[in-house]
Amino acid sequence: MSQNKPIGVFDSGIGGLTVLKALQSHFPYESFIYIGDTARLPYGTKSPETVARYAANLTKEILHHDVQAIIVACNTASTHGLTTVKALAKDIPVIGMIDPAAESAVSASRTGHIGVIATSGTIKSEAYKNALIKQNPDCKISSVACQILVALAEEGWANTDIAKSTLHTYLDPIFKQKNSPDTLILGCTHFPLFAPLIKEMLGTGVTLINSGEAASHHLAKLIKKNPSEKTSPKIKFFVTDDPQRFAENAAKFYNDQITPEDVMLIDIQS
Amino acid sequence: MSQNKPIGVFDSGIGGLTVLKALQSHFPYESFIYIGDTARLPYGTKSPETVARYAANLTKEILHHDVQAIIVACNTASTHGLTTVKALAKDIPVIGMIDPAAESAVSASRTGHIGVIATSGTIKSEAYKNALIKQNPDCKISSVACQILVALAEEGWANTDIAKSTLHTYLDPIFKQKNSPDTLILGCTHFPLFAPLIKEMLGTGVTLINSGEAASHHLAKLIKKNPSEKTSPKIKFFVTDDPQRFAENAAKFYNDQITPEDVMLIDIQS
Repeated sequence: MSQNKPIGVFDSGIGGLTVLKALQSHFPYESFIYIGDTARLPYGTKSPETVARYAANLTKEILHHDVQAIIVACNTASTHGLTTVKALAKDIPVIGMIDPAAESAVSASRTGHIGVIATSGTIKSEAYKNALIKQNPDCKISSVACQILVALAEEGWANTDIAKSTLHTYLDPIFKQKNSPDTLILGCTHFPLFAPLIKEMLGTGVTLINSGEAASHHLAKLIKKNPSEKTSPKIKFFVTDDPQRFAENAAKFYNDQITPEDVMLIDIQS
Repeated sequence: MSQNKPIGVFDSGIGGLTVLKALQSHFPYESFIYIGDTARLPYGTKSPETVARYAANLTKEILHHDVQAIIVACNTASTHGLTTVKALAKDIPVIGMIDPAAESAVSASRTGHIGVIATSGTIKSEAYKNALIKQNPDCKISSVACQILVALAEEGWANTDIAKSTLHTYLDPIFKQKNSPDTLILGCTHFPLFAPLIKEMLGTGVTLINSGEAASHHLAKLIKKNPSEKTSPKIKFFVTDDPQRFAENAAKFYNDQITPEDVMLIDIQS
């Protein structure tokens, strides 16, 4: 595995930037390629077959960049497309969102009671439930679909009183009970934006699992030698629609500024 | 124009049901065909060319049902697809969401100051702004993109304290000023669900314009003779993905119950 090859990250759109952020903070001297399929988002409302096909398109595109690993930074694509991506990637490691988060959650939980918040599509797919049970057949799982959090994150309202009330509405039924979960998976790439409010609400007794961080820990086992401080890492962004809009919205998900000049428009055949 | 032919209504998904509801209350003895393109929603994030192409697909489908009129019950499709739909429909009347609402707003407004709330896509397209100026070149327009209202409506949270706070956040900057609008266009088919809360907030001094009702008034000028009480109207629903999910979610937008058996899955080539 070459130290100089970039790490490839793809998502249906913009949420995967929270995953890229986590990866960059773990691997500050690695280069990255990020592809956001903004022309075809959201994936959550599409059929599993279509999502797998789109994931295959993105994988083929990312393989042109001679990447050392592929991170599927999208829960829906991880649920329905991971097998397809792995088959195309051959010996290049592929890491999705579901399994690393489930692994981190099971190892963090003392009580075995794990909460999962995600989009309606991810909850309905039972992807986290299945992955958690595979890790610990005895674990108890409390899931809740938190669809409105996606809209709040995209509107830049993740740190507002409305976000707080929304989080209470979704989380209180799970956490204001006896024997509530001691670990909570943020099962949507948009949700790390709410981590400060959720921590404030749930206190230190509940460990939050961020999929991007879990994927980074997993990747750390595969990347033996990090490039040294002397290397200057590069990040390239590619989107399938409207680089300007992507750059404008990126600020909500990615602390560093992205200008439209940093983002290249690409065409992906479906 | 035959009295027995159904009225065709199409939308990208489920929001158009508020339009169907308004049409049904104005034309209780007419039959309707409703097509929701649930496989390809949302239209708001797609390019104008793609939206026009999808609108053409739906129009061809709806023309198979020998309809007496076509209602484009989707603001995005009305903005980018109306010319295409009209060309395909030939002598069958086609009514979109934008012009009837603009016409109703201009005739309702005493001050000429009109507010518009819609999705980000509709606001950015300036479709309402252009239609209003065409009706009254001197009118003043205050627009605000209210993206979160879409998510709240779809979650069934249209009548909650969170909806109230969200409406205040969006509307106060416009309505808590001197010379605020006296008329407000609900420029998204999801927004009639918030009409009770908005009326409570803004009081009787502001007239709300519901696109479905405006389209119904427009249609009333074209349909001369309504079928009599003796006819038994039929409503048929068609969707491009998951009839069960459509039927489940319909309840939030459509007072009457729709069961999965009422909904037929159709395939539309793009």
